[in-house]
Amino acid sequence: MIQQVIEQWHAYLRGELSGGLDELLDDDVVFYSPIVYTPQRGKAITAMYLHAAGQTLPGDKSAANSSGGAGGGFRYTKQVLGDDTAVLEFETTIEGKYVNGVDIIRANAAGRIIEFRVMIRPLQAVNLVHRQMATMIEKMSPTP
Amino acid sequence: MIQQVIEQWHAYLRGELSGGLDELLDDDVVFYSPIVYTPQRGKAITAMYLHAAGQTLPGDKSAANSSGGAGGGFRYTKQVLGDDTAVLEFETTIEGKYVNGVDIIRANAAGRIIEFRVMIRPLQAVNLVHRQMATMIEKMSPTP
Repeated sequence: MIQQVIEQWHAYLRGELSGGLDELLDDDVVFYSPIVYTPQRGKAITAMYLHAAGQTLPGDKSAANSSGGAGGGFRYTKQVLGDDTAVLEFETTIEGKYVNGVDIIRANAAGRIIEFRVMIRPLQAVNLVHRQMATMIEKMSPTP
Repeated sequence: MIQQVIEQWHAYLRGELSGGLDELLDDDVVFYSPIVYTPQRGKAITAMYLHAAGQTLPGDKSAANSSGGAGGGFRYTKQVLGDDTAVLEFETTIEGKYVNGVDIIRANAAGRIIEFRVMIRPLQAVNLVHRQMATMIEKMSPTP
């Protein structure tokens, strides 16, 4: 089950999942940010965070979309699959700074993601992503 | 293989691994800190970092050594095992602050740990552990 979910996640990242995040996320999914303590509950807010991460983390986007090899672009470096949980470790470069992180993804029996948890290292990367995500979320929020 | 290594790791944390870290770590193990970019190479420095983490992360140590249930003590919340890699997610409370993290542990065919990588969230926890680890490492280093 989790294998199929992760294949769909990779397809989403390549822009090849027809239903997009709406198909992949459970209505009651919870997003755990690398920055913020408070769990973000629900499909809409989780999709917003994942979309913001998708804008921030790629670094050199063209490199991420090619073979996924060298360069500063986003690439997964480890994939560990359990029964209902997958851990994907990644590396990327943002503003010339190295970012190393994990996506911890848990799915239900229906093949929908119910938990998406992100952690990053080192400290410099956490601070950098903090600044970038704040700017991105601000842009995406409706202006009052 | 990794299953056995993780059983030994848990035994080490309980103080029940006779050979200690010396038995568990490969000579060429690399430690990737949640704070510092530079990989820390070798058994001695990795053991020092893991020992420092063992002093810092338990929070309420007595809770960690009991059933591992409620309270502020260190507890593993997920365990995902691959072929040569294990991911252990944990929670703890330090100075009343919630800390969530992962240990990413990779072993060789001889059953020795060759990579130990730690990431934590949220930002507040990273900053807290940064301060605590710095103090701890300072205490453990030989004074000139």
